[in-house]
Amino acid sequence: MKPAKTIEWTGRAVRLLDQTILPAKTKFLTIREEKAMWEAIRMLRVRGAPAIGVSAAYGLYLGVASRKPATLKSFRTTARRVADYLATSRPTAVNLFWALDRCMAVVDALSGETTAKQALARLLDEAKAIHAEDEITCDQIGQHGAPLLAGITGVLTHCNTGALATAGIGTALGVILTAARKAKFTVYADETRPLLQGARLTAWELQRAGIETRLVTDSMAATVLQRGLAQAVIVGADRIAANGDAANKIGTMPLAIVAAHFKVPFYVAAPLSTFDLAIKSGAEIPIEERGREEIVKFGGTEVAPRGIGVFAPAFDVTPAKFIAGIVTEKGVLRAPYGKSIKAAFGG
Amino acid sequence: MKPAKTIEWTGRAVRLLDQTILPAKTKFLTIREEKAMWEAIRMLRVRGAPAIGVSAAYGLYLGVASRKPATLKSFRTTARRVADYLATSRPTAVNLFWALDRCMAVVDALSGETTAKQALARLLDEAKAIHAEDEITCDQIGQHGAPLLAGITGVLTHCNTGALATAGIGTALGVILTAARKAKFTVYADETRPLLQGARLTAWELQRAGIETRLVTDSMAATVLQRGLAQAVIVGADRIAANGDAANKIGTMPLAIVAAHFKVPFYVAAPLSTFDLAIKSGAEIPIEERGREEIVKFGGTEVAPRGIGVFAPAFDVTPAKFIAGIVTEKGVLRAPYGKSIKAAFGG
Repeated sequence: MKPAKTIEWTGRAVRLLDQTILPAKTKFLTIREEKAMWEAIRMLRVRGAPAIGVSAAYGLYLGVASRKPATLKSFRTTARRVADYLATSRPTAVNLFWALDRCMAVVDALSGETTAKQALARLLDEAKAIHAEDEITCDQIGQHGAPLLAGITGVLTHCNTGALATAGIGTALGVILTAARKAKFTVYADETRPLLQGARLTAWELQRAGIETRLVTDSMAATVLQRGLAQAVIVGADRIAANGDAANKIGTMPLAIVAAHFKVPFYVAAPLSTFDLAIKSGAEIPIEERGREEIVKFGGTEVAPRGIGVFAPAFDVTPAKFIAGIVTEKGVLRAPYGKSIKAAFGG
Repeated sequence: MKPAKTIEWTGRAVRLLDQTILPAKTKFLTIREEKAMWEAIRMLRVRGAPAIGVSAAYGLYLGVASRKPATLKSFRTTARRVADYLATSRPTAVNLFWALDRCMAVVDALSGETTAKQALARLLDEAKAIHAEDEITCDQIGQHGAPLLAGITGVLTHCNTGALATAGIGTALGVILTAARKAKFTVYADETRPLLQGARLTAWELQRAGIETRLVTDSMAATVLQRGLAQAVIVGADRIAANGDAANKIGTMPLAIVAAHFKVPFYVAAPLSTFDLAIKSGAEIPIEERGREEIVKFGGTEVAPRGIGVFAPAFDVTPAKFIAGIVTEKGVLRAPYGKSIKAAFGG
């Protein structure tokens, strides 16, 4: 059974599956303008780097369309303003900026004769194209990555990188699902504190796909590797620097270090839209810090003393040297990443 | 302010602070016989290796006393049965077996003239001695360990190893509290999934002690070390093998590996009663696996899909090579641990 669609264009609005209340409740949001989209991205109602990119593109269209610009000039001014606004929703996943930049490049390239109506149609087409391409990209990542999991009895993953995080079958989870069509193995899913995307979303997707799953706390992942229960680790990414350093959900970097210690290959799966060639290394990736509520509460229950301080980075950066391969729609990139990434972009 | 007493002998019963509902509620249990003590240990109402040892010793006395043995022979048979029963409560912390063995050695050494009443009094004295010695031991560990934290601006700890885990100021947390009397630094406390001893207990103890605290999820600890926010890690232990391999709360081993990667010293603090010289290495330490409920639920709230599988080891083993020093009541033991541990035991 396929999960309910994460992002759907209804013809007038975006229908988003609210991921903050899964798996307890399946609720859809109808997003008609950019403020609601900003909130949905900010509050992680839609999350996962590729899904954020697709959502931002639709959000840009909706924001401009709702203002009904009469001229190409006002269309352009409005588009810039809405894009800048949406770009403030979350700082780490580069797919957000990539999608907005791609749409704005279309806006910039419009000829002076274009009417505002035509420009709007063009903007919507671009959002739809980003959406459709992501589905294909996921399939390609799955195809390229599946052979990496040949012969394993178990694989470990962190956070959620499946259908809920993308417009297709997913990135890292897409690789797992593709491999699982031809082989039987157990997936160890990190619960992924603080927001439990592994427990709530990945476990849910795997269960629906009929794949043997063992949920673990993030702190148990090392024991899974130490005991040889998983012979590979595969995760997604929110931004990959030109040297291969990869930002991903908090808890990924220690997993990579531990995997290296136990000689378990550690893979990253991400579309090329997740690469940020403008930055040289992971040190330059801005890391979002989130509110204390996410840590001091667990499933809605307060678990820590009132007034306690927190430190809450939402992402960490895995140095490229710990990554055995980066699975993209163009194939598996290998070290030295500076070279292989450049080549993937035709450089 | 000192936290409420974790374990108290009332003259007839043991008064235990129920640690499963802290910090939301402060509730005390009155334990009058061994079944209630077994349940309290099993359900983690009392936890922490040293506190488990003290509790087991009292539990043994209570179990025998409640049966009112008339003769020394029946006293001995009863004591053996109760000790064997209490030993089944939890498998990993060796202090449990150490305390029971120590009490049974007293039983075995009784002369044939001893009355059952005298024997009972002797058993209670031994429990009280274990209790009193643990308090002193904690102070000594604190004194020996505090210099290791000189000059730091931050220290990271995992699980709870404070007054709640012992009969004194604690082991690893005792070192932190002792060092904090003379210096100002921030304590980064891992929340410690699944049972959140860090969020619920350590944060609570630190807050009461007026020490600057930052609660982090277990997955954020690596970022604390990567950014240099903590210049030392100190944790407790549940069992230390003759070669220095140390079993401790799940999540400790990856922390040690990550600390080594970032060149941050990783210390273990534990009394000599936590050492198990009968086993050569950590590979022989039995690792308790606990129920799925602890992972899929929190505070009654389900956080994972129904029926999902789990893998739930409660402890992991940190190889001795990652440990910069083991703080005991006899001083800080250093590698090679085979030698230094033997010496600490007068071998």
